[in-house]
Amino acid sequence: MGLKFQNLDATESFAVLNKLPVPSLREILTTERVSACTIPVGGGLSFNYAALPVDNKISAALAELADEQQLIEKYRALLDGERMNTGENRMVLHHLTRGQLGNAVEENGHNFRTFYETQLERIASFSNKVHEGTIKGSTGKNFTTVVQIGIGGSDLGPRALYLALQGYYSKAKLEARFISNVDPDDAAAVLEGLDLESTLFILVSKSGTTQETLTNQKLVHNYISSHAPKIDIRRHMLAVTSAASPLADSEDFLESFYIDDYIGGRYSSTSAVGATILSLAFGGDEFARVLRGAHDADRHALEPSFYDNAALADALMGVYLGNILEYRISAVLPYSQALVRFPAHLQQLDMESNGKRVSRSEEPLNYHTGPVVFGEPGTNGQHSFYQLLHQGTEQINLQFIGFLKNQRNLDSVQDGFSSRQKLNANLAAQIVAFAKGKQDEQPNKTFPGNRPSSLLYGDELTPESLGALLAHFENKVMFQGFTWNINSFDQEGVQLGKMLTKEVLGGEPQDAGLSAYARLLGVL
Amino acid sequence: MGLKFQNLDATESFAVLNKLPVPSLREILTTERVSACTIPVGGGLSFNYAALPVDNKISAALAELADEQQLIEKYRALLDGERMNTGENRMVLHHLTRGQLGNAVEENGHNFRTFYETQLERIASFSNKVHEGTIKGSTGKNFTTVVQIGIGGSDLGPRALYLALQGYYSKAKLEARFISNVDPDDAAAVLEGLDLESTLFILVSKSGTTQETLTNQKLVHNYISSHAPKIDIRRHMLAVTSAASPLADSEDFLESFYIDDYIGGRYSSTSAVGATILSLAFGGDEFARVLRGAHDADRHALEPSFYDNAALADALMGVYLGNILEYRISAVLPYSQALVRFPAHLQQLDMESNGKRVSRSEEPLNYHTGPVVFGEPGTNGQHSFYQLLHQGTEQINLQFIGFLKNQRNLDSVQDGFSSRQKLNANLAAQIVAFAKGKQDEQPNKTFPGNRPSSLLYGDELTPESLGALLAHFENKVMFQGFTWNINSFDQEGVQLGKMLTKEVLGGEPQDAGLSAYARLLGVL
Repeated sequence: MGLKFQNLDATESFAVLNKLPVPSLREILTTERVSACTIPVGGGLSFNYAALPVDNKISAALAELADEQQLIEKYRALLDGERMNTGENRMVLHHLTRGQLGNAVEENGHNFRTFYETQLERIASFSNKVHEGTIKGSTGKNFTTVVQIGIGGSDLGPRALYLALQGYYSKAKLEARFISNVDPDDAAAVLEGLDLESTLFILVSKSGTTQETLTNQKLVHNYISSHAPKIDIRRHMLAVTSAASPLADSEDFLESFYIDDYIGGRYSSTSAVGATILSLAFGGDEFARVLRGAHDADRHALEPSFYDNAALADALMGVYLGNILEYRISAVLPYSQALVRFPAHLQQLDMESNGKRVSRSEEPLNYHTGPVVFGEPGTNGQHSFYQLLHQGTEQINLQFIGFLKNQRNLDSVQDGFSSRQKLNANLAAQIVAFAKGKQDEQPNKTFPGNRPSSLLYGDELTPESLGALLAHFENKVMFQGFTWNINSFDQEGVQLGKMLTKEVLGGEPQDAGLSAYARLLGVL
Repeated sequence: MGLKFQNLDATESFAVLNKLPVPSLREILTTERVSACTIPVGGGLSFNYAALPVDNKISAALAELADEQQLIEKYRALLDGERMNTGENRMVLHHLTRGQLGNAVEENGHNFRTFYETQLERIASFSNKVHEGTIKGSTGKNFTTVVQIGIGGSDLGPRALYLALQGYYSKAKLEARFISNVDPDDAAAVLEGLDLESTLFILVSKSGTTQETLTNQKLVHNYISSHAPKIDIRRHMLAVTSAASPLADSEDFLESFYIDDYIGGRYSSTSAVGATILSLAFGGDEFARVLRGAHDADRHALEPSFYDNAALADALMGVYLGNILEYRISAVLPYSQALVRFPAHLQQLDMESNGKRVSRSEEPLNYHTGPVVFGEPGTNGQHSFYQLLHQGTEQINLQFIGFLKNQRNLDSVQDGFSSRQKLNANLAAQIVAFAKGKQDEQPNKTFPGNRPSSLLYGDELTPESLGALLAHFENKVMFQGFTWNINSFDQEGVQLGKMLTKEVLGGEPQDAGLSAYARLLGVL
């Protein structure tokens, strides 16, 4: 397809960026700039970068960098089914789970869009039957609770989305719970509170070989057998897996829904992995709204101009902060309690995608790639780690998220302002406090300011805006990976730990230090 | 008291440390080292630093640094009531909430140990009456749920401890919930599920002026008035505050318990702030076990020798990694689902204490201070951000935590190993994978290794070991603050945001950018 792959430090615009003077936020952050620096994200969201130290010259160089690294062309190639996951020689098709934007993607007569749509329809239809009571538990009770057994991408994204939407609906159709950790105290805490006869489990593992998930499957089996022996477990468990997995087409499951190797775990929330639990919790039609929002953001991310493309701008401004100004840490700060676990999902999305040290062509890189990501909801974080953000010695890229309206119907006005307005007054105040700082006679009361932030905001956290938020970060991470010339879609860094764990459980670790730690921890 | 305060870079040992060669973990991590490098923490916990790049020469220099910076002497002075919180001219007395280690601390005939003990006794007695049913709700129902309304230190520590102990007891005496965020969706989510007639609220604010907490107090009042008007709210709400607060001695509360200005919010879990909710949840005698574990760790932290003092060693090895080897980020990785929110507590503890840029004598520092702290339980994190830890371009100080036994009575053996053993096999494997790495023909499958970690471990997560864990980190943070010559006990960096929020809610922000953001977010 004629795509050119080169390292960031081989581009001309990178050299230009290194020489441009850095504007002072204390000086540039004006009313006009707050209005002007907004780009639509899709799904009703907007991206505002007024409080980033990016002026016209820097923007122009970043736009040039987007062209030099062919970011839009590479995104288009990915959409069209190019095997952008080079290490594993795989296509990258998560965008296709929410709609078609490129050419038809086919392989041996198998159309992938049709496949993903079919799974979604099967899931919606199954969910409807559960909600109507046509499908019941094996002892005749309606299902009231759904428990996802999965880890990593089969846990973090679906869980973050479930928590984000819980307040949007007055009541979930099925309450969702999650078992992820191989620590049996995790499963025990969930199982102890359940009415097993009205509980439906979903076993989620693309490969069908995930140690934690299979261990928890058996733990749950044993628990049900001993606590509720009259239950027919096969009628209480679904599988979400790939067609090639040992779990596929098994009679152990009431029903199986499918994904494939072209959906990475951390990108699977809009596939059957997220669709099953979220459709059971809120309904298939409601999950379709999440997909529409994500698709809308995916479409916006195709905008060729840097100035109209929020994901592209967010990505490149992040690269500017990271590689020119040496910001190596990113804090995600949602002023929305519903997004309480969204930063944990972003940790996986970003750090597993872009925590890489070799280029796409497998040469060690001379520059920093993906940042460490952490975050907690505001205003809670203000009373926790913001001290360091304001007056510490580290440089942190701040990404705020805010909404104008509540999800739930509870608020009260005190002293002329609702709680929501107080929340957002805090958010506005923080952006400006970080940017402008404050001089004081006492050095410990001085705020140096000039600490950059950006803001993603919308009217309300709805299924559509949530889908757009999810896709925005996926696309941002993708564009950053292209810019750094890395493969954002494999995760070879998780293999060594798995291998050494197997050695321990095989009883013969090669490394003496490993044996020593295993003994210390009661394994050998 | 003849204490000498000097900056880290003014010490001789810092210059020595800068010149010492850094040992390679790939070479030094032997069976012998795993056995040898263990220091008792107290409360049944141990600290193992075999996988830190610290050899005899570096240890000797760190021991010398401890002497030069008078770390034990400063801790002793703090215990004896020296006003170590210089900026606010306050004593630092959280150790005294769990026992006496130094001289009696008195002021105008007021003995602080007696004061803290009295509050604990009052709380235990009150809790007993609630458990016995002597104290009931205003409509005659027994209390079954307790809701803490507080933010920051009044939320994170108590919440982390509650979650950590929930599995240790087959059933909590009262189920605990938490309302913290000024986002009304937080309070709504908690309130919607409650039987208000059997719910006891605890309003926690030392100053009695915390915006979020007072806003949520009124929100809860309004909610109860409209949803359960027959409830006498005053008989359903306690206060935990200081004697000087506007909340003190108010008839709005069934009972008030007291703290004082010498207990910082992030250090308040062992004061009335944590005691009230945890004694109500698990019993006063059980909370006393947490205090005993913490006190034991406090005592161990007085060991004069660096080689016998886990908190001191952990602190100084962290300074070595941070200031000599440039590790600016710390990941806390508990292989224990019960510690799911413990990293969030440590974020506040560490980042609010040591995220400072000026010295104790208020001069800007030329070196880095407190790290960014983040973390999630293992093995979950392995399927999320460990990719970056193994193969990313950032340097991260890893702090593992593990236990030999489960809390809950559920496990199952598969293929010869229990889930707990699989969990710990993963933990052992990760330590060695990070330290030793792995060469591979393919660069994307190569692990550079030499990535340091330490391990806190114990037999089981009990009230005692949890208390010790809490105190260990408090003492580590304290010793690091002394080493950097900063004041770890104030938090002036939270003030500017509060001030600008007030300007917005007062309707007249001075800064035009602030007005613009406030309008964008629907406040003005």
